[in-house]
Amino acid sequence: MIRRLSEISWDDFNRLSPAEKNPYLVENNRPVHVLVAQQFDRKQMDDLGSLATRIRFIAKNYRGMEFLHGLMKYERAMLYFSQPSTRTFLSFCTACEILGMSIGEVRDTITSSEFKGESHEDSVRTFSSYFDLIIMRSEIGGLAERMAWVLSNTDRPVPIINAGSGKDQHPTQALLDVYTLQRSFEESGGIDGKTIVYVGDLARGRTVRSLASLLTNYRDVRQYFVSPKALQIGEDVISMLKAAGVKYGVSEDFEQMIPQADAVYMTRVQDEWDEKKGQSKKIDTSKYHFTVKHLDILKPDAVIMHPFPRRNEISPEVDNDPRAVYWRQMRNGMWIRTALIATIFSRDDEIRSYDLKKK
Amino acid sequence: MIRRLSEISWDDFNRLSPAEKNPYLVENNRPVHVLVAQQFDRKQMDDLGSLATRIRFIAKNYRGMEFLHGLMKYERAMLYFSQPSTRTFLSFCTACEILGMSIGEVRDTITSSEFKGESHEDSVRTFSSYFDLIIMRSEIGGLAERMAWVLSNTDRPVPIINAGSGKDQHPTQALLDVYTLQRSFEESGGIDGKTIVYVGDLARGRTVRSLASLLTNYRDVRQYFVSPKALQIGEDVISMLKAAGVKYGVSEDFEQMIPQADAVYMTRVQDEWDEKKGQSKKIDTSKYHFTVKHLDILKPDAVIMHPFPRRNEISPEVDNDPRAVYWRQMRNGMWIRTALIATIFSRDDEIRSYDLKKK
Amino acid sequence: MIRRLSEISWDDFNRLSPAEKNPYLVENNRPVHVLVAQQFDRKQMDDLGSLATRIRFIAKNYRGMEFLHGLMKYERAMLYFSQPSTRTFLSFCTACEILGMSIGEVRDTITSSEFKGESHEDSVRTFSSYFDLIIMRSEIGGLAERMAWVLSNTDRPVPIINAGSGKDQHPTQALLDVYTLQRSFEESGGIDGKTIVYVGDLARGRTVRSLASLLTNYRDVRQYFVSPKALQIGEDVISMLKAAGVKYGVSEDFEQMIPQADAVYMTRVQDEWDEKKGQSKKIDTSKYHFTVKHLDILKPDAVIMHPFPRRNEISPEVDNDPRAVYWRQMRNGMWIRTALIATIFSRDDEIRSYDLKKK
Repeated sequence: MIRRLSEISWDDFNRLSPAEKNPYLVENNRPVHVLVAQQFDRKQMDDLGSLATRIRFIAKNYRGMEFLHGLMKYERAMLYFSQPSTRTFLSFCTACEILGMSIGEVRDTITSSEFKGESHEDSVRTFSSYFDLIIMRSEIGGLAERMAWVLSNTDRPVPIINAGSGKDQHPTQALLDVYTLQRSFEESGGIDGKTIVYVGDLARGRTVRSLASLLTNYRDVRQYFVSPKALQIGEDVISMLKAAGVKYGVSEDFEQMIPQADAVYMTRVQDEWDEKKGQSKKIDTSKYHFTVKHLDILKPDAVIMHPFPRRNEISPEVDNDPRAVYWRQMRNGMWIRTALIATIFSRDDEIRSYDLKKK
Repeated sequence: MIRRLSEISWDDFNRLSPAEKNPYLVENNRPVHVLVAQQFDRKQMDDLGSLATRIRFIAKNYRGMEFLHGLMKYERAMLYFSQPSTRTFLSFCTACEILGMSIGEVRDTITSSEFKGESHEDSVRTFSSYFDLIIMRSEIGGLAERMAWVLSNTDRPVPIINAGSGKDQHPTQALLDVYTLQRSFEESGGIDGKTIVYVGDLARGRTVRSLASLLTNYRDVRQYFVSPKALQIGEDVISMLKAAGVKYGVSEDFEQMIPQADAVYMTRVQDEWDEKKGQSKKIDTSKYHFTVKHLDILKPDAVIMHPFPRRNEISPEVDNDPRAVYWRQMRNGMWIRTALIATIFSRDDEIRSYDLKKK
Repeated sequence: MIRRLSEISWDDFNRLSPAEKNPYLVENNRPVHVLVAQQFDRKQMDDLGSLATRIRFIAKNYRGMEFLHGLMKYERAMLYFSQPSTRTFLSFCTACEILGMSIGEVRDTITSSEFKGESHEDSVRTFSSYFDLIIMRSEIGGLAERMAWVLSNTDRPVPIINAGSGKDQHPTQALLDVYTLQRSFEESGGIDGKTIVYVGDLARGRTVRSLASLLTNYRDVRQYFVSPKALQIGEDVISMLKAAGVKYGVSEDFEQMIPQADAVYMTRVQDEWDEKKGQSKKIDTSKYHFTVKHLDILKPDAVIMHPFPRRNEISPEVDNDPRAVYWRQMRNGMWIRTALIATIFSRDDEIRSYDLKKK
């Protein structure tokens, strides 16, 4: 049953778990807003993945680029990023431009009217006056959800895409991670039955939290969490996995886990969330770095992923190994975001019926 | 008689009153530069309003957007904003893009060459080398005028639009306010004979100053200024109204004035102009907030306006009342700026002769 | 013999002199990357100059602009400027847009992921994932070269243009200076045999260093360096000129040199490179300012140049003299950069065969 976001009070909506929010965020199998990873089910992820791949092929020549650029050429996207980001920002820019959209940006809140004491609600409603899509990143957890709810009660309820909010959600990162796994295991039976090993700062990295949740949509996936105790994955994620009946494990021994992995998902220490400055530096993470010597004990068809930016979790020498897919993973983000935006605006059918062979 | 800006010395031009500058800023009834609100007469405002409305209708479908985007597609606009602004900035961006222009921006003077001690004159002349239009906002009163004069004496005298300078002028805000009044009173005889009540920080808000002046072009408009004594409208505006033979009033009693208003124009406290930090906080403005209870005493066909950003002058609950037109007012800004730019570049005739019915 | 950058180690490449790097940076007479001024020989500079002039003529009407915009319309440029700049930035933006490219920018490293401790290598490799060309400016000497080398060893070796790095190289500034000289002496036999007088902070201005080197490609050019002792040109430039057998001179007497100049190249004090704050202020540079009185002793067909930004090296009154070509010099930068980008992407032939007369 479809329910509209404007039909529920903010307090009631806010009280729902991410998965329960699904009916308010999806219409005809297409997202209205993209707020939480859990709003995507397996069918949607498969559809997005196949659409992204199709776009990738269409974009290979001039005629295809011309077709894509014509799809949304008079629609405009606002990128509202009040938290530092290069990659996510550029990836969304590129996705928008592939579809022909023009872009506005507000990145530094100092140059904006918030300086004059305006509420977030008014700022976002302002953006909705000039733009057809708002892509936002904020250090405030739940802000994107709040804004989507606010807009749903106005006469310009433009879609909102959450490009990272607080410590919790970064749904498009999760989608690109899933897409990378889909592509990596394309010829080995897909994601079902695979083993994922997450490494690093699992306590505070929102990408791992989101991905762990999305992977419960696949059959027999094993998920292992490897980190120093102080940085282990939160109890809430463990409970979620238990409830979903998923095989999982928690470990401090990185080298022991590597040989079992089909995918090793490395992450950096998120010290920007330190409560006391320098707090993370006291934790010894040196045993959780992927170096050239680990390549020997990694399965020949496994993959190494990283959401970037990286510091020293993976030594640059590893980059040249064909199993290091993190650079491809980054470009996957561009393709899956293009697919996502096209789907939100119901341009997916047109893309699927594009004739690749026509001259 | 047409006079060119290059034919007068800076000192002589600077000495003229805003209204006296008119002959140097208008050619064939079209603005050469947009520097002061007073350069617009009633005919020009009516023309701009009807052009904006026409553009609004043309933009409703794909063929219309295509037509508009083709009008100025190889012309480029520089947005030079050294004072914080979201709304005006985005509004101009959108206006430019509707006409197909591409945009460059300099917003943070730290990243610019001014860092190296360049004069404003050289900076603006640089912009004129790369762009066909300069839209500028500055905390320095009169800077846009100075720059227009400087460029008029070079071989690339591109148009300048003042997007807010100092405490004094913000002419395009005044135009959008007039356009909002035109639209609001479209079916009740237009602006003539109406009563406008300005509320809030009238001493330092440049929008009220500009609008008060433009409304003297209409017949029998009554203008009331309501604020705490410390924030009352300047004597210079009162003198201007007296000279124009306009009915006006000054009051401290907000609730008493509401029932008389055809338009209530709310403004925020402009504390960024405080001479001493915190000075505005000492003034009690709580009696000058529009709340839900005031809706009952407001005329059924009156409108509530606000130039934004708002703080607490209007409670968000008022937003849902159909008389609250401030969100529409904001979009009006986009349309009137589009109309203005098209007029500066003599594309207005082409827009007026566009056939809306053609398939 | 063509050598690829991926075939040499970084240490070996880094050890080469600028001129020795040429074979690694040029293929089929077209630049692969633009890193150092010395990679250009006379034929390349002549070709770029004639291409720039052709583009200038093509851009004069709507049909021509349409042709140019169609050339690279699905290619995208990243402008990565971590050092303040207005002019170079805008000039490159405009050049890209003339060719129809879309643009991304990272200017303030605070808003970027470098904030999170990412290496330059990873940042630039990220840009190469989303863009087809990277134009970069940095206070770090040699960074652009390092990045070009890094990319050459990846599967997306996109071209890099050095838009200024450290105290040393700013090759496109040198190209625009040469183009300005080419245009200025178009009807007086070209650059061969002319006398160039550099004035100001020659110790730290990278533009003079680059230009001095490029002019050794022309016959019988005399180069004079005029500045207070503390700001004189470096010994390395003098050695280079000696080795090239070029006539040169060093002087502290500005007025004496003016009458001999075919081109006077003024520069500002580069105090951002001061080792101690305020250090430059102690040097008396007042005798090295070009004022109206110097116009009398300047040859009637000489030119006055300046790379901008200017402070007080040239008084604004001089601007109106026809020999003051620095504003034109700035626009030349836009044209030569357009020519350069078109050449890197092998669109030069198409531009040369465009029929200017066709209706």
